[in-house]
Amino acid sequence: MAKMSSPTETKQCIESPTAVFQKFAGKAGNNCTLSKTEFLTFMNTELAAFTKNQKDPDRMMKKLDLNTDGQLDFQEFLNLIGGMAVACHDSFTRSTHFQK
Amino acid sequence: MAKMSSPTETKQCIESPTAVFQKFAGKAGNNCTLSKTEFLTFMNTELAAFTKNQKDPDRMMKKLDLNTDGQLDFQEFLNLIGGMAVACHDSFTRSTHFQK
Repeated sequence: MAKMSSPTETKQCIESPTAVFQKFAGKAGNNCTLSKTEFLTFMNTELAAFTKNQKDPDRMMKKLDLNTDGQLDFQEFLNLIGGMAVACHDSFTRSTHFQK
Repeated sequence: MAKMSSPTETKQCIESPTAVFQKFAGKAGNNCTLSKTEFLTFMNTELAAFTKNQKDPDRMMKKLDLNTDGQLDFQEFLNLIGGMAVACHDSFTRSTHFQK
């Protein structure tokens, strides 16, 4: 059998969002969406430091819930991760004073 | 000093894209964008199996280069990662026959 090389960092970037989303979406009810409770559990578990600074985590859920069905599907969840990845890159760029 | 807990999987999802992007964007020229050469090196290094199945990796670069400046900035790069993360979740959902 071909020796499986360890996954690259990029492959983890691609696969991890599914693993994290299903870990919390699968807790109760519809396994394909995050309920408000599951979303708050996710935020307090996976992004505790960030969440502590949020005055109103409920408001975050409302902003992400684009189709206003009271749940977050995977795309709506990925928008959060993507937005935070962009913010992370912006702060990296500012901190290292790259010349555009 | 407060004990730094190990980063959660979500934090890695958020920080890894910057680490991977800068690893390849920093090779030559503008450190804030991926040239075509840097993009192909990234694809052949980080996503070798996927890239082998691509008839025309150049066409991928053109599709991602939304502002047609011949380079990929971080947002354009993140669109690739995000698109592949959605495809990964879709195939996970199909393979586990979740009921919507």
